[in-house]
Amino acid sequence: MADVATLVEQARQGRPRAVARLITLVENAAPELREVMAALAPYSGRAYTVGLTGSPGVGKSTSTSALVSAYRRQGRRVGVLAVDPSSPFSGGALLGDRVRMQEHATDPEVFIRSMATRGHLGGLAWAAPQALRVLDGAGCDVILVETVGVGQSEVEIAAQADTSVVLLAPGMGDGIQAAKAGILEIGDVFVVNKADRDGADATARELNHMLGLGESRQAGDWRPPIVKTVAARGEGLDELVDSLEKHRAWLAETGELAARRRRRAAQEVEAITLAALRARIGDLRGDRHLDALAGRVAAGELDPYAAADRLVAELTS
Amino acid sequence: MADVATLVEQARQGRPRAVARLITLVENAAPELREVMAALAPYSGRAYTVGLTGSPGVGKSTSTSALVSAYRRQGRRVGVLAVDPSSPFSGGALLGDRVRMQEHATDPEVFIRSMATRGHLGGLAWAAPQALRVLDGAGCDVILVETVGVGQSEVEIAAQADTSVVLLAPGMGDGIQAAKAGILEIGDVFVVNKADRDGADATARELNHMLGLGESRQAGDWRPPIVKTVAARGEGLDELVDSLEKHRAWLAETGELAARRRRRAAQEVEAITLAALRARIGDLRGDRHLDALAGRVAAGELDPYAAADRLVAELTS
Repeated sequence: MADVATLVEQARQGRPRAVARLITLVENAAPELREVMAALAPYSGRAYTVGLTGSPGVGKSTSTSALVSAYRRQGRRVGVLAVDPSSPFSGGALLGDRVRMQEHATDPEVFIRSMATRGHLGGLAWAAPQALRVLDGAGCDVILVETVGVGQSEVEIAAQADTSVVLLAPGMGDGIQAAKAGILEIGDVFVVNKADRDGADATARELNHMLGLGESRQAGDWRPPIVKTVAARGEGLDELVDSLEKHRAWLAETGELAARRRRRAAQEVEAITLAALRARIGDLRGDRHLDALAGRVAAGELDPYAAADRLVAELTS
Repeated sequence: MADVATLVEQARQGRPRAVARLITLVENAAPELREVMAALAPYSGRAYTVGLTGSPGVGKSTSTSALVSAYRRQGRRVGVLAVDPSSPFSGGALLGDRVRMQEHATDPEVFIRSMATRGHLGGLAWAAPQALRVLDGAGCDVILVETVGVGQSEVEIAAQADTSVVLLAPGMGDGIQAAKAGILEIGDVFVVNKADRDGADATARELNHMLGLGESRQAGDWRPPIVKTVAARGEGLDELVDSLEKHRAWLAETGELAARRRRRAAQEVEAITLAALRARIGDLRGDRHLDALAGRVAAGELDPYAAADRLVAELTS
């Protein structure tokens, strides 16, 4: 394998293979990541990141692809990261069926990557941000982060973007139900896709009502727009890009962009810190110390808090 | 509120309100938990825990309810814990629609509890085991842990049981797909429910093939049985209970029961340890130290690993 410095340099030049290999390092939680992230740090924070989330069937892939086209018409370099946090298996399977992305597959200014985030808890909290750092370092102007489902992990990922787009489609009452389960709160921009279908206006009205968009807001507050699109025909995409640019401008003007990025960095640092501490517990476990404590807990001789107290004391002294 | 010692004593006597209040303490990650778990430790490890998982529509609730009936016919005290790890909201909503559990609602020897596991990462790893400790302490002979979906978190919960039951139904190709996504590995006992429908034999055969059950195994290895049930009519339930008892006996004979419980205790202790360490990072954050580091990371002056190194050094020195 090429050394890390070379890979990072090639990724910086926008070489797709190098970008792909760096993201594989992220996916594998490779020890080289430390060096990769150190090399990329000076080039971070340039890309504008947009998260896309919504129930299955609302047309997320189609919308993502249409957004890529819209940004490409503006000459932007675009990254796409499709994250599947619910899949316990890594692999390219996800990308296999992303037929709608095919049209961008040969465009050297578009980087598309699927990422399954293995089994380990907390992995997501650092994996997605680090993949974003790679795409950012590769000179992407815009990075679209598409999540596969609408579970809690997916919402957390989408909420890590500069701007979060929540997609709905008409005639999907369960779309609204899913929205209720935590995704309305994170939406900066709402999209009613498949707006040529019956019920699109009703969905937009219902959404408008649920969001309380009719109510008065403080001057300077962001009022999430609802954009109607037919992504499969590219309709409404310019308006969506326009809404995204407005939100980006609002973020920058109000200082919210910097604040969001600081919060994101704090979460990322915390997650790496916890992973490092966990590895130290693992070292203790290697000493069979955790095993011995666990044996006593399983036997009812010790409660799990008392056992944890001992580990914390050993780690922090 | 009654003091913890009184609550634990009442729960030990099987008083439903006390059991419910202790599980609420678990759900809320209340500070009193430390005392509760210390008081319960000597009474842990008596209950036999069975995890039930499977795609929506396979009849998990109905099967759980039918299993409760089967165990009640044997005079056992039964606990049911329905866990919804994907819901970001806590609350009793889940229980509201569990109509099929109604028949057990007035049985003083049955404890039924739904638990939504808030937002925080790692919460699940300790919340479900601690709720099990409460039900165990309350003298349940058997505890059924039913998970709502088939995501990774659900599979992790089901895998924490002594015995994991994976449910499928005929005519649900996606059931098999879901099974492929990680749940076949954890199944100790498989159930083809709705076995009066067309395709039940085909589903059982397909499952048999996927599990490689036709292949020879080492003597002493567990061979997961496939049990056909019509849970709504109680058919096949005695056979299922019989399979569970056989697995339980196998676990005990081979020492695997103790090994599984030690592994589970190790995970639980590790999760509590990480939560405690995380709280310490939070204290540092209160000092605005993490914030300052995050600001430098967001500005590209520091990479996230270098920032994490500093936090680890401060926590562990």
